[in-house]
Amino acid sequence: MPYIDVHNDLPGIRGLLAFRPETAGPLGQLANLLLKDTEGLTPTERELIATYVSYLNDCFYCHISHGEIASCYLGGDRALVDQVRKDYRQAPVSDKLKALLAIAEKVQQSGRSVTPADVAAAREQGATDRDIHDTVLIAAAFCLFNRYVDGLGATTPTDMAGYEARARQVAEKGYGDHVFQVNH
Amino acid sequence: MPYIDVHNDLPGIRGLLAFRPETAGPLGQLANLLLKDTEGLTPTERELIATYVSYLNDCFYCHISHGEIASCYLGGDRALVDQVRKDYRQAPVSDKLKALLAIAEKVQQSGRSVTPADVAAAREQGATDRDIHDTVLIAAAFCLFNRYVDGLGATTPTDMAGYEARARQVAEKGYGDHVFQVNH
Repeated sequence: MPYIDVHNDLPGIRGLLAFRPETAGPLGQLANLLLKDTEGLTPTERELIATYVSYLNDCFYCHISHGEIASCYLGGDRALVDQVRKDYRQAPVSDKLKALLAIAEKVQQSGRSVTPADVAAAREQGATDRDIHDTVLIAAAFCLFNRYVDGLGATTPTDMAGYEARARQVAEKGYGDHVFQVNH
Repeated sequence: MPYIDVHNDLPGIRGLLAFRPETAGPLGQLANLLLKDTEGLTPTERELIATYVSYLNDCFYCHISHGEIASCYLGGDRALVDQVRKDYRQAPVSDKLKALLAIAEKVQQSGRSVTPADVAAAREQGATDRDIHDTVLIAAAFCLFNRYVDGLGATTPTDMAGYEARARQVAEKGYGDHVFQVNH
C-alpha cells in the first residue's frame, strides 16, 4: 500500500502516475525518449544503465522491471543482467558500456562525483557526446524514478511473472501513454 | 565549459537542454507542472523545496536559480530563502512546510529513507495526499536536475545578476519552452 491513497491498485510507478496524470505525461515521454532511442546507445544498453542505477538505489520495483526489459532484449539472458547489477566490470559487455556504467555509478552518488577523467575514459572507448549525455540523463532520471517509487512507498509486487509480462509489453510498445493508463 | 560540446554558451541546464531538444520538452513540462502549480502547495513553497534539495545536492546553479525565484515570489526576501537552505526547522515558515521539507530531505538521501512516520507527521500539519505526492516528486525531480547539471559539468555563472534576471522571467512566464530555447 502506498503512503498516499492513489485510488487504484496498479503496481509500482504506474499507480503513482495514474494518481497524477498531468505529471505522468512528461515522465512517460522522458522514459520513452531515453530508453527506446536507437541513436548511439542501443535500447539494451540503455536498459542496462537504468537497471544498474536502480539496483544501486536499492529500488526493487525499478531494477527488476528494467532488468526484465533488458533480459527480454537479450533473449532471456537474466544472468548477464544480474552480472551487470553486481559486478559490471567483469560482465561480458563492451568496454564502452563499462566506461559509461562507471559514469552512471558516479551520477548515482552525485552529479559532482563525475570527473573529466571519467568522461575522457568513456571517449577513449568510443563514446560520443550524445552517448555521454544520454548516460548521465538516464542515470539522473532513474535517481528520480527510484525516489518517486520508494519515497511514496509504491506497491511492489513480488510475483516475477507480472514483471516478465510487462517487460514484453514495453519491449514491443514502448513507454507510451498506454503503459501508464489505468486500464491497460 | 561542460564535459561535452553542447554547441552553445547558455548557462547551466539551459545549455544541456538546447543540446538535446527532444528531452528538453518533457523536462521543461515537468518543471512547469511541479513548480508553477497552485493547487495545494504554492509556487513559493514548491520553489523552496526545490532550492533546499538542490542545496543538499550541492548544486550551485540549481540552488541559486531556484532560490532567486523563491525570493522573487517573496518580495526579495533572500534571508528567508537562505534560512530554509541552512536550517529550515528554525525558519519562519509553516509547520506544514517544515514537515514537507523533512520528507524532501529524506527523498534527497534515498526514496527508501522516507517512513510512514514522516508522512503521518506531514498529515498532522494538514498536508494532503496531493501535497505529499508533489513534495516527493519535486524532491525526486531535483535529484534528476541537479545530477544532469553537475554530472555534465554545465557552465555555472558566478555573476548573481544573471540569476536575478532569469528568476524574474521564470516568475512571470513559467518554465515553458521559451525558457529553454537558445535565443530567448
